Amino acid sequence: MDRVLSSELISHVGERVCVAGWLHHQRQLAKVSFLLVRDRVGIAQVVAINNDVRAAVSELVAETVVEVTGDVIASDQAPSGVEIVDPEVTVLSSSGDVPPFELRRPKLSAQLPTLLDHAAVALRHPLRRATAGLAAALVGGFRNTLDGLGFTEIHTPKVVASATESGANVFPIDWFGDRAFLAQSPQFYKQIMVGVFEHVYEVGPVFRAEPHDTARHLAQYLSLDAETGFIGDHTDVMAILREVLAGMTANIIEQAGQDLDLLALELPNVPTEIPAIDFVEAQHLIEADTGESVVGETDLAPSHERWLGEWARRNHGSEFVFVVGYPMVKRPFYTHPDPTRPEASKSFDLLFRGLELVTGGQRLHRYDDYLAALDGQDLTPFEGYLEAFRHGMPPHGGFAIGLERWIARLTQARKIREVTLFPRDLHRLTP
Amino acid sequence: MDRVLSSELISHVGERVCVAGWLHHQRQLAKVSFLLVRDRVGIAQVVAINNDVRAAVSELVAETVVEVTGDVIASDQAPSGVEIVDPEVTVLSSSGDVPPFELRRPKLSAQLPTLLDHAAVALRHPLRRATAGLAAALVGGFRNTLDGLGFTEIHTPKVVASATESGANVFPIDWFGDRAFLAQSPQFYKQIMVGVFEHVYEVGPVFRAEPHDTARHLAQYLSLDAETGFIGDHTDVMAILREVLAGMTANIIEQAGQDLDLLALELPNVPTEIPAIDFVEAQHLIEADTGESVVGETDLAPSHERWLGEWARRNHGSEFVFVVGYPMVKRPFYTHPDPTRPEASKSFDLLFRGLELVTGGQRLHRYDDYLAALDGQDLTPFEGYLEAFRHGMPPHGGFAIGLERWIARLTQARKIREVTLFPRDLHRLTP
Repeated sequence: MDRVLSSELISHVGERVCVAGWLHHQRQLAKVSFLLVRDRVGIAQVVAINNDVRAAVSELVAETVVEVTGDVIASDQAPSGVEIVDPEVTVLSSSGDVPPFELRRPKLSAQLPTLLDHAAVALRHPLRRATAGLAAALVGGFRNTLDGLGFTEIHTPKVVASATESGANVFPIDWFGDRAFLAQSPQFYKQIMVGVFEHVYEVGPVFRAEPHDTARHLAQYLSLDAETGFIGDHTDVMAILREVLAGMTANIIEQAGQDLDLLALELPNVPTEIPAIDFVEAQHLIEADTGESVVGETDLAPSHERWLGEWARRNHGSEFVFVVGYPMVKRPFYTHPDPTRPEASKSFDLLFRGLELVTGGQRLHRYDDYLAALDGQDLTPFEGYLEAFRHGMPPHGGFAIGLERWIARLTQARKIREVTLFPRDLHRLTP
Repeated sequence: MDRVLSSELISHVGERVCVAGWLHHQRQLAKVSFLLVRDRVGIAQVVAINNDVRAAVSELVAETVVEVTGDVIASDQAPSGVEIVDPEVTVLSSSGDVPPFELRRPKLSAQLPTLLDHAAVALRHPLRRATAGLAAALVGGFRNTLDGLGFTEIHTPKVVASATESGANVFPIDWFGDRAFLAQSPQFYKQIMVGVFEHVYEVGPVFRAEPHDTARHLAQYLSLDAETGFIGDHTDVMAILREVLAGMTANIIEQAGQDLDLLALELPNVPTEIPAIDFVEAQHLIEADTGESVVGETDLAPSHERWLGEWARRNHGSEFVFVVGYPMVKRPFYTHPDPTRPEASKSFDLLFRGLELVTGGQRLHRYDDYLAALDGQDLTPFEGYLEAFRHGMPPHGGFAIGLERWIARLTQARKIREVTLFPRDLHRLTP
């Protein structure tokens, strides 16, 4: 008999079916036993009154994998409106031990380190599974949107010969006896590939040796990178990013609506035009409102990002806000300056609910501009990168979205590690 | 004026349009100049007779990025049936130097190391770009097919605390002063996640410190991994793999038909039922045919794989063939034995044109079986993995496809590095 998923039972009332999954919970009353069988989409309620069946089932610990054949009936008492009666229960795979947490509880109450240590079990909790389902839908939406815009997917090296991009916070690797590093981003490669495909994206891991034990950093995270050529300026990049964000949230509804319901989340509305504010103008507003002396600083403090998040919500009804024109001194060397005021850049941050979610902008595209930007540095490690610009590159720009950070903000998790399957950080390399 | 792609010109005959791209080539005749402008989908032919335009253009070196506005006319002489006349040419970005190769040639004649050293330019050649387009279509087809079968995408750590899976050929990393390793595969993680989503896949880089300088190995490659729960046995995994292969080739036609034409490739037919042969039976056939003594060996030599490829083509009209029942001694510890003959496994290799392309099979799913398989080993590094089996795992299995290897076989490249954007191997860490 073919297996039916728990969510499909409602259309099998009156039939004998087979479900399979993990024994989520069981309750033994005087004359009846209730079993909850969890599969990848939900939970099936099974009611047993036969004493042999009840005795056999009472021996099973939670998380035993079972197959249940029984009759589907409508039931007002069952949470999903149906239940399975007259069951035959077969053990597919026994669970040796009582699990470290009760997965049947609405929320796992253990401390985060304990949950992470026991990820193999904790991730089975419906809320943790739903969060991972959101992640898959977001990534799918990122790709679908860019595919529709004529982008091509690429995959680039995660091991590089030199820490050229920032120089700091890299992980050294022993590469056949030579020293190499884990890539901090696909930046150089996606720019090179604009010379081939004009519009490219990559979904892949990036590595930052963050020595800080913060709530918002991971040492490995999933970077959703896009880069696009033949642009006018950074505002074209911002327009594409807006499409991507809208496509990602739309794909949650399309592909993970049930996860959204389970998590009781409200998705943000991505406005047709995301409000944008100039960095210096933002500083003036913050200074005027808070009395803090911020004009002239070269970066925004987290409290200032939060202030701007509130400002955008209040004045534009938007949970997203672009901050444009960041000072060049705080941006990487490939950032394109604003010709009308060279100390400012054609780059942006996108804040979501008061936290930086995306960084992007227009890049330099002329070879001579790169030579000037790298003046005084040894150019040898940049050779393969600079060759692209030596042989004609169109005006281009791009952005990178940190997936886990976005999920953390969407789900209002306090720590990014809460929403990461198997996080890696200063203190964690397992499981 | 909005930009039109070279492939769209045919539907703009009689209009004045704007194209943009790289100056692929130019020919100056006595009274007329021909320019070829390459964009991401093809090449536009531009004909100039105005002497000022001709003089200005003659200064431009190949790979200069230009924007051309002109009138589209039908032309029997133009390769695509249309050309642009009366052009105005604007330089978007100049090329400083003559490129290291003539991209206009039908094939790049430089040696592979030279092409790889200058990847930023070499990848712009239409044939190299088309190969990378095939790769994107294959990866898209892998995901689409599995999405349609109810699989969920995951992303797992690429840095692990211990070299538990094979112990050999790992790259050590300095992880905040501790020793860690680059992951050789997502095997343990995808199995753990079967406990959450039942059916999962991952597209991501894997790392093998292959000390050999061979034509078919890379130190980083893209692994297309799938793992599926609630199976009967390995043949269910093989059936899913068959769907995936068919979906991948179908997506090339859907998404990269033009690349296929450019490369003049014929796609393999994925038969409804891919022929399968038992390992020992295969050895008997090979021994009978070649006279070599192979029965009793625990692995197939490359020449034997080629023999089987020929056998499948001759007897089944198939370029694919499964070899099932590999000896347990040659398979990893998590491989499920065949209960009817415990020295053989429920695992398979898929050969494509006589070369191993995919490895997969059913895995152990009972905790006690893992304890037996790991008998004598320190279990500490396996803790997070074994916890999944301690708490109920369904019968499951999966497979991994090496993307670059498949592309190399599809395009009949002699070396896998020829079809990899930025290969990493024993001797190569740049660009």
